[in-house]
Amino acid sequence: MAGFNRRSFLAAAPFIFTATALARAAAPAAKTQTPGTYRFRLGDYQLTALYDGIWRLPIEDNFIRNAGKADVNAALAAGFLPPDVLPVSFTALLVNTGRKLVLIDTGTAGQITDSAGTLTANLATAGIKPAQIDTILISHFHPDHINGLKTKDGGKVFANAEIMVPQVEWDFWMDESRIETAEGVVKKYFLNARRIFRDLAREVHRFQPGREIAPGISAIAAPGHTPGHVAFTVSSGNQTMLVIGDAARNPELFVRHPAWQPSFDMDGPLAVATRQSLLQKAAADKLLVHGYHFPFPATGHIAARAEGYELVPVLWQPL
Amino acid sequence: MAGFNRRSFLAAAPFIFTATALARAAAPAAKTQTPGTYRFRLGDYQLTALYDGIWRLPIEDNFIRNAGKADVNAALAAGFLPPDVLPVSFTALLVNTGRKLVLIDTGTAGQITDSAGTLTANLATAGIKPAQIDTILISHFHPDHINGLKTKDGGKVFANAEIMVPQVEWDFWMDESRIETAEGVVKKYFLNARRIFRDLAREVHRFQPGREIAPGISAIAAPGHTPGHVAFTVSSGNQTMLVIGDAARNPELFVRHPAWQPSFDMDGPLAVATRQSLLQKAAADKLLVHGYHFPFPATGHIAARAEGYELVPVLWQPL
Repeated sequence: MAGFNRRSFLAAAPFIFTATALARAAAPAAKTQTPGTYRFRLGDYQLTALYDGIWRLPIEDNFIRNAGKADVNAALAAGFLPPDVLPVSFTALLVNTGRKLVLIDTGTAGQITDSAGTLTANLATAGIKPAQIDTILISHFHPDHINGLKTKDGGKVFANAEIMVPQVEWDFWMDESRIETAEGVVKKYFLNARRIFRDLAREVHRFQPGREIAPGISAIAAPGHTPGHVAFTVSSGNQTMLVIGDAARNPELFVRHPAWQPSFDMDGPLAVATRQSLLQKAAADKLLVHGYHFPFPATGHIAARAEGYELVPVLWQPL
Repeated sequence: MAGFNRRSFLAAAPFIFTATALARAAAPAAKTQTPGTYRFRLGDYQLTALYDGIWRLPIEDNFIRNAGKADVNAALAAGFLPPDVLPVSFTALLVNTGRKLVLIDTGTAGQITDSAGTLTANLATAGIKPAQIDTILISHFHPDHINGLKTKDGGKVFANAEIMVPQVEWDFWMDESRIETAEGVVKKYFLNARRIFRDLAREVHRFQPGREIAPGISAIAAPGHTPGHVAFTVSSGNQTMLVIGDAARNPELFVRHPAWQPSFDMDGPLAVATRQSLLQKAAADKLLVHGYHFPFPATGHIAARAEGYELVPVLWQPL
């Protein structure tokens, strides 16, 4: 009867998968993520989003100064994200103008969390060596934006790049007198900025926002997150995109709720004014927007909603 | 004076980019897109979204039976997409159960448009050879889902895979009597199904939906788009995802407006009922959803809105 039952089961089954499947060796599950690079065109320029990874940051009760943790968790849930953890995604932007390779911000170089630090590997996937980068533009001096300039041992990662930083950031973070009174994580930021920039001082060009600083690329004052934080516009042909930096971080929180003041923003009200202004401009002008902390490929459009805004991610396309 | 003016300009400029930039050879713009693969975990399974490309299809006036072209263009504009063109994105799903490699749908094999056909290249990026695929599950017999089974010359692409197709699809598209009365594009679909399957008939297993057809993978009847179209659920551990196939295509059109009846759907009202049912289920159960025609990585959650639904793309993360 056992044999009959088995035959009956097999006869009723629409196929037989057990024998062949068990006989063949299965492919082992991969240990690492696939490359995180995405190319797109802006006028005559070719841009590449370069993924560096993600930092899963436990959310403190006072993370948002003007909203409760329940509100934060509700916003995360609306994005189908788990509660109590902020997923801090890092994606830098490479601009190939046809004459120059310009990198905007530099990733973490594995110096913040084990789950980030893939920028140079993804640069290699994109066919670019670090030594080919001509210019590096820095939005502000937080570690996740500048650490990629240096290895853990203090070596230069981008051997031939000129490094351009906001004058106000340099003046603030490199001011010896301020470090004495700094506390907690901000003190770490001061020390980290020195570690990265001290021996590069002669190679670093300081710029003022409000002008073109590389071909087709202009800096825009976007203070609040840090004193000298800047955004950038990239223009080619008749197309312009906004590189919003940390003026708007996780979209499910700060694009949806631009008035929220996270503890990351040194001047909360000023950061909100900057964020509102840039999001309003992006929505009104239907600008393509890159956000360093937007989900990879970190590029999309900003749509105005009844309250706040929404990030509409770019459609992944062949070149 | 010319020399003085030039010196003045350089002195006023916050940096000098002309000399070094022109002296160094610029990296040429890349000719192709970066790999389109994305890995994620579902319980103990490892899944990989495999991008095949995109087909830019001019939109006919009667594309939606129960909505006008202006409505379609408005929906595209809400997704920041240009008017009059439907971007048909193709992304297949690979399931590694730890014992078996199961591929759900097969891409276009470059037989539909020059801007699609990268599935096997992306499979290689993911470290998998076509001969390693154990099982192929087919949602329905439209060319963009089955053409990847064969090269243009009729060769088998997946040498060792058992191929599983919905019984109702097989009975419909392989019915010699129906082809006589078929017209237009549907006639082409009949002929194409014969081209793909005729010499595979002995290797193809036909299944009925409503049961498990591979380890952890069940087929669900999802008719309307075609008579025998199926969706799939993939379950591992306590996680289940929905592989919705063509029951919901471009999200900015058919997730937002699930009652729209595109000319692609052979039975419009039945397809709407199927779509509404699956989207409602996905939203209610917060299921992860893969959509063959969703933007790469073609994976996200379905959120109910005041009218219709919205696709919330998955957050790209390291493994």
